[in-house]
Amino acid sequence: MADSSWTDSAKSLKGVILDMCGVLYDSGEGGGTPIAGSVEAVKKLKASDLQLRFCTNETQATREKFVAKLQRMGFDICVSEVFSPAPAAVAILKERGLRPHLLVYDGVVPEFDSVDKTNPNCVVIGDAADKFSYQNLNEAFRVLIGLEKPVLFSLGKGRYYKETDGLKLDVGVYMKALEYACDVEAEVIGKPSSVFFQSVLNDMGIQPQEALMIGDDLVNDVGGAQHCKMKGVQVRTGKYRPSDERHPTVTADGTVDNLAQAVDMILSRRGC
Amino acid sequence: MADSSWTDSAKSLKGVILDMCGVLYDSGEGGGTPIAGSVEAVKKLKASDLQLRFCTNETQATREKFVAKLQRMGFDICVSEVFSPAPAAVAILKERGLRPHLLVYDGVVPEFDSVDKTNPNCVVIGDAADKFSYQNLNEAFRVLIGLEKPVLFSLGKGRYYKETDGLKLDVGVYMKALEYACDVEAEVIGKPSSVFFQSVLNDMGIQPQEALMIGDDLVNDVGGAQHCKMKGVQVRTGKYRPSDERHPTVTADGTVDNLAQAVDMILSRRGC
Repeated sequence: MADSSWTDSAKSLKGVILDMCGVLYDSGEGGGTPIAGSVEAVKKLKASDLQLRFCTNETQATREKFVAKLQRMGFDICVSEVFSPAPAAVAILKERGLRPHLLVYDGVVPEFDSVDKTNPNCVVIGDAADKFSYQNLNEAFRVLIGLEKPVLFSLGKGRYYKETDGLKLDVGVYMKALEYACDVEAEVIGKPSSVFFQSVLNDMGIQPQEALMIGDDLVNDVGGAQHCKMKGVQVRTGKYRPSDERHPTVTADGTVDNLAQAVDMILSRRGC
Repeated sequence: MADSSWTDSAKSLKGVILDMCGVLYDSGEGGGTPIAGSVEAVKKLKASDLQLRFCTNETQATREKFVAKLQRMGFDICVSEVFSPAPAAVAILKERGLRPHLLVYDGVVPEFDSVDKTNPNCVVIGDAADKFSYQNLNEAFRVLIGLEKPVLFSLGKGRYYKETDGLKLDVGVYMKALEYACDVEAEVIGKPSSVFFQSVLNDMGIQPQEALMIGDDLVNDVGGAQHCKMKGVQVRTGKYRPSDERHPTVTADGTVDNLAQAVDMILSRRGC
């Protein structure tokens, strides 16, 4: 039986934000597989009076392709509901007149089509997976170290994620590598950046106290949301590990077996 | 004209420790090339009454092969004079009964021949260069994250080094990556570890105040030596960058154009 004290605030909720990988589906070969009950849970949320947004640090594909993949899995979801780091990065680069050297997954490169990439004066890294070769990381390093003042953007700062064949290193690990190599601090675009969460709240037009974040990453999903005064609930799917429940600095407002359980607890508390 | 105030202590010197890559030679394709004047400078030191040792974080080859390469370049040097991290790591692993998963350059693997590597309960990383693929780093990560208490050894903690075709990322960058991924702190074997420098002093049988370290890495060579109460001089060869001379935390006792200049200044001050 899950602790349900976090649902006390369910009646005052106006919006729910869902992490995607590890909550809706497990990624892996062939695009991944839906987590049991998650397709139905999203349907229930959409049928309720709650607003719903999806918030992901996914940077292996454009939002269009990524959303199409989830639709094929059966999820009722559209591009305008999904917040991901690459479009946010494009906005920042244009605003500051920066020309990026990209170290990102091939699939996400089209998101940057409208950005001038000649004679780069900053580096943008995303979860590049196999593209994080020694040669590619060294190339990004050389761009940075050649700048008078190195500017590094990281699309998220996750440590690792879970694919169907096991845990995989995430972009944060390579962010730390380049930070150390060049003695700089990266600017993180995506979760757990408050700017990023706030843009989702703005889109829903609600206050943080009226929103709940559900994710599998204790630090980036739950901790990031709590830092913005939202409530944060962790699911025991995806990258969840039992040690998360005794983490030294982040304590989730609730921990549930999976998204289906979280949604049922919220909706029953609201009398749906 | 170089500042020569650091040579005030030259008369009380009993031993000199030389870094190798970037001081004796520049590494690169085909094994690298000697730095002008360095072969002769080593000869002069050997002909003096000073003790001489070589201290390197080189982990791309066994000491035997590495020394043979330097001999071919013309350096008067032998294996017993060279201190490198791999043999020090082997001693520590045996002492603690640890079985390593190795992520090191192929050439240095034979140094670990005498160590049990089955069912690993720690990870040892060295400067693995091209072997730092996403797949290999992920494999090391999975070993660490699977241990109840992850143990990570790093053979040095350098940020980057210079090869004939440009700057290259060093092992410290990947150490930081794995530290972040697993939320552990690596144990550094090699420079700038005080234990490592002390083992060289012990071998010469002298006090730190009687020794001078000459290197191209301000933090690991000069700063590491100073931390042990030795004097540290930086050469303007190898990975030296002008910004080193206004570094926020490490100030070399002296900065010289190259090893040849340093040796001439020391020996002339001693009246040789």
